Amino acid sequence: MYKLLENIDSPEYLKNLDLPQMNDLAAEIRSLLIDSVSRCGGHLASNLGVVELTIALHYVFNSPQDKLIWDVGHQSYVHKALTGRYREMINLRQFGGLSGFPRYDESPHDAFNTGHSSTSISAAMGMALARDIQGERHSVAAIIGDGALTGGMAFEALNHAGNLDRDLIVILNDNEMSISRNVGAMSAYLNRLRTDPSYSRRKEGIESALNRIPAIGPNLARAAGKVKDTVKYMMVPGILFEELGFTYIGLVDGHNLEELIAVLSNVKKMKGPVLVHAITQKGRGYMPALEDPDRFHGIGPFDKKTGTSKPKSIKTYTEVFGDFMLQQGKRDEKLVAITAAMTTGTGLSEFAEAYPERFFDVGICEQHAVTMAGGMAREGMHPVVAIYSTFLQRAYDQIIHDVALQNLPVIFAVDRAGLVGEDGPTHHGVFDISFLRTIPNLTVMAPSNENEFMAMLKTAFTITGPVAIRYPRGVGEGLADSEADILPIGKAFLCEEGNRLALIGIGRGFNIARRVRELLHEQGIESALVDARFVKPLDEAMILDLAKKSGRLVTIEDNCLAGGFGAAVLEALARHGNSRAEVISFGIPDDFVEHGKVELLLDLLNMDPESIVESLVNRWPDLVQPEGAWRVLKFGEK
Amino acid sequence: MYKLLENIDSPEYLKNLDLPQMNDLAAEIRSLLIDSVSRCGGHLASNLGVVELTIALHYVFNSPQDKLIWDVGHQSYVHKALTGRYREMINLRQFGGLSGFPRYDESPHDAFNTGHSSTSISAAMGMALARDIQGERHSVAAIIGDGALTGGMAFEALNHAGNLDRDLIVILNDNEMSISRNVGAMSAYLNRLRTDPSYSRRKEGIESALNRIPAIGPNLARAAGKVKDTVKYMMVPGILFEELGFTYIGLVDGHNLEELIAVLSNVKKMKGPVLVHAITQKGRGYMPALEDPDRFHGIGPFDKKTGTSKPKSIKTYTEVFGDFMLQQGKRDEKLVAITAAMTTGTGLSEFAEAYPERFFDVGICEQHAVTMAGGMAREGMHPVVAIYSTFLQRAYDQIIHDVALQNLPVIFAVDRAGLVGEDGPTHHGVFDISFLRTIPNLTVMAPSNENEFMAMLKTAFTITGPVAIRYPRGVGEGLADSEADILPIGKAFLCEEGNRLALIGIGRGFNIARRVRELLHEQGIESALVDARFVKPLDEAMILDLAKKSGRLVTIEDNCLAGGFGAAVLEALARHGNSRAEVISFGIPDDFVEHGKVELLLDLLNMDPESIVESLVNRWPDLVQPEGAWRVLKFGEK
Repeated sequence: MYKLLENIDSPEYLKNLDLPQMNDLAAEIRSLLIDSVSRCGGHLASNLGVVELTIALHYVFNSPQDKLIWDVGHQSYVHKALTGRYREMINLRQFGGLSGFPRYDESPHDAFNTGHSSTSISAAMGMALARDIQGERHSVAAIIGDGALTGGMAFEALNHAGNLDRDLIVILNDNEMSISRNVGAMSAYLNRLRTDPSYSRRKEGIESALNRIPAIGPNLARAAGKVKDTVKYMMVPGILFEELGFTYIGLVDGHNLEELIAVLSNVKKMKGPVLVHAITQKGRGYMPALEDPDRFHGIGPFDKKTGTSKPKSIKTYTEVFGDFMLQQGKRDEKLVAITAAMTTGTGLSEFAEAYPERFFDVGICEQHAVTMAGGMAREGMHPVVAIYSTFLQRAYDQIIHDVALQNLPVIFAVDRAGLVGEDGPTHHGVFDISFLRTIPNLTVMAPSNENEFMAMLKTAFTITGPVAIRYPRGVGEGLADSEADILPIGKAFLCEEGNRLALIGIGRGFNIARRVRELLHEQGIESALVDARFVKPLDEAMILDLAKKSGRLVTIEDNCLAGGFGAAVLEALARHGNSRAEVISFGIPDDFVEHGKVELLLDLLNMDPESIVESLVNRWPDLVQPEGAWRVLKFGEK
Repeated sequence: MYKLLENIDSPEYLKNLDLPQMNDLAAEIRSLLIDSVSRCGGHLASNLGVVELTIALHYVFNSPQDKLIWDVGHQSYVHKALTGRYREMINLRQFGGLSGFPRYDESPHDAFNTGHSSTSISAAMGMALARDIQGERHSVAAIIGDGALTGGMAFEALNHAGNLDRDLIVILNDNEMSISRNVGAMSAYLNRLRTDPSYSRRKEGIESALNRIPAIGPNLARAAGKVKDTVKYMMVPGILFEELGFTYIGLVDGHNLEELIAVLSNVKKMKGPVLVHAITQKGRGYMPALEDPDRFHGIGPFDKKTGTSKPKSIKTYTEVFGDFMLQQGKRDEKLVAITAAMTTGTGLSEFAEAYPERFFDVGICEQHAVTMAGGMAREGMHPVVAIYSTFLQRAYDQIIHDVALQNLPVIFAVDRAGLVGEDGPTHHGVFDISFLRTIPNLTVMAPSNENEFMAMLKTAFTITGPVAIRYPRGVGEGLADSEADILPIGKAFLCEEGNRLALIGIGRGFNIARRVRELLHEQGIESALVDARFVKPLDEAMILDLAKKSGRLVTIEDNCLAGGFGAAVLEALARHGNSRAEVISFGIPDDFVEHGKVELLLDLLNMDPESIVESLVNRWPDLVQPEGAWRVLKFGEK
């Protein structure tokens, strides 16, 4: 079926192909992509858009000597197929299979790990500097989308690179959208470059234009200052990049292999920082993805003939959030919603449509999003900032410095908290409880089901300072009601009494705890079951009470153990001088967790209910011994 | 002495002054600044540079209805003097006195708190949006330096603002340097604007230039595309900002009150986002500051006649780091040093001079700095990234995602960790132990003296993954030797034996612990004393051993208690099933700590040795009772 691909164990092989063969290869790769992603889920549209670009890059450059760094990296499937991993594409994003992102430990062709946006130019810059210091000679190229280019750190790197004058290639993969449609002046600027001939004129035209300089009247030439600059301003497109010190090469048709190869071959020989502006089409070659690239950005398994996904019967937390926001928008005119290029991903599409004047997609700019929310809150609005847990790491400083320090009422909707599954270690949201818990003035909650989530959202609006609610990816417990009460701040919920031990779960950890309780109950062991609800303020009174009653506490969370919820419980016990209680904490150990289905990962971490029960019994063997078996008989008892 | 200032209780007063009076006022303010800062320490050069600009802003705008947001905020002293706080300038940065940064809780004229760089445009943008949503009408202006403009989030905000078309004013306070001399293409671009007439032509010139359009030959006009754009490219300076959607107004002489007032009055009436490019001179009006603005950026008390500071007799940690790097640069050709606009602040000036090809100041770009270091490490270099603790919060995600996940050997020199004193809550580095401790693969150390610091630096180079060393601001213990040994990884140092309790200090906390031990010893209470050295990996064996011996552990750290070193000790005890030991942790409570001298702040937090002893005795009264007083006598003992 994959005649050409079957022979490709290394990108070297490409050098022997002619143009028609390469175009055949492109067709094979597209069908491989649709096959793999329809089966395993993943990023389809972005990979369909870079088929020719990736072939051309591997034809012109010599990986791994030359370094290719894929920004975000979800568009690296084609690269993986061309670098000896074609056969493993069938296990894409499955546990033990290929990662959905570049991984150096998977192949030396993956020059630098990526996953989060806007890092590639910084990494490439570091590699170019290392090359020069060590007297080596090879090319370093970062491939970055127009969406990722809006991220602040991409600009930091452009600004630095543009001035240092090292040989560095940036390929701008411009497909007019990141995940949702792009926003911002840079996007508008790129759009002008794409559509306006006075901006988009090819570089090659400049030489002939220069020959016409005498046609400028001498007065005007004087008025305009230096002749060279004048002509440059008139003729050179991409002036913004040129002003930042890059040589701008554009526009290049990102689906024309001949043109791509010609341009990249020239670029390879050029000195200094060069930006190649390639135009690609997201979803190219697959109609359903072309028509709905947003949905096909990151997608679960789907029917490859029709492009339809299996309908879900239970609402996701994201959908519950979206519904709530739509309702709350009506109730509260001060509510504004802010997202960082994740309108659909965070469930805000309907809010955006209903309240366009109170909805702001700032692009892939988590830092700006948080501080802007601070500004709005200062002036009387009530902003909700919806950002995935893993991306909120980018705004840690802004939450501290621009929101919490001023005790501003900003609500953080922290989606994709905990293990996220197939996206793997770059995307697991397993640090947020720890890093958010350090921040004074911040209230931190985590729901164990949809009703509680709605109650927490409602509660958040009654709090006069900043609030974060962290909730998991995927469906909830099937409990989405329409009404929800306001929760008492800092109060945990005691669901079940029990005197042998107390199980305290937070968020998804509570649902594991509930199952642990059932398993223990089946063995005749009665445990108290608590839904912690609040990471901060912590319900210290209840924790102390539980510690007094059974002396045995078990905490369960899908956050790292270092500084996590379990640590908060330990801190509270120590602060109150209670050193009698024994505490066992279950959570993510001090290691990065691989990609794979969440259930499987929890099993591997021994965080499934059965393993937890086993651990508890190992630690406390008296739990399963007949009650009183080891008890010393009282005098005269027999 | 301050004839005019004495009358200024509100910026309203300015509106009654004429130009000569305002110039007199400027002179008064300069002398006030030199007076206050020579006495209290603080930021001098930047404030001397914005005297006229601040007067003009308050003359034209009506604070607090109009919002002025000072980026970084260390240049807000003039603003403070003009907004009713002139008399309090005498207590600048002292505990209970004026903050060195804008504080909304200090005055409503401080529209938004700042401290860290590059936040002002985001905050201003949020305020402008809130204004529009609520149907209000007032101006919002961010005042940002050219250094702060290199920060990624400033670009995120510019990019967003430039496209949304709200009324928003950005005043670019261009003094050609942030703290050290600026770097990057943006800086080079601003320099061209400043110096090249073809770039810097005033906007007013455009109209007349437009009239000359027929002078362009018809062929050329066609070749160049739209006539309007052609002329714009030839005539409009600040094309980079114009391309980002801003109306660019420049250059404005930032020390000419008449010009400033005229320009700002026009700008106030303009629609959409406007960028005013004002040229100012750091240190203006005070020769020592003009000659050495780097030293006068942030400075301790000095002799105002000569500008000289009191010489220090003991080396600072920063200097010890600088010395080490200079030596290590000779020993290790793979060593590169990276700073984010803090060459002098982090002690790297001499390294930069000795090894210019291995030194990189990336501008105020902590995110880019860390990821670039990752790229270098991947390619065989050994980067040391020197960033203050509080600013490293900006790169939390990059440390996780671009360094630790790939286990790359990057060394983080985390200066200014713990309480920093007079800079206050925006600058205290009291979160790093907590947030760094969550990161897998990362080794985290903190020295208690200079020798140990050098040993840790040396040790860091022997570790094959990422390492962070956090160390305090200011002088050490006077122990700087030339030689240092490599430390065993993850091993604490038991300095003194003692069986009543164990004192475990980390970093500066150890020096407090040592004094606590002395005080206890004076009362006949013998305690073990441990220098923890490693936050991670933690010396669990020693902790368990100490817990077994005395059952009483005391941890002392200058980091927040939430998830800090004390929490790590609790986690270790719990993980090993040790529930007998009682632990008391001393550290920063769940609150932001004000500005003031470090010693004073520690006193207020009851973290001084005397208070700690008192707390310990309160908790464990048997410590001071005569030994055996409460002991039940054994049978026949009497």
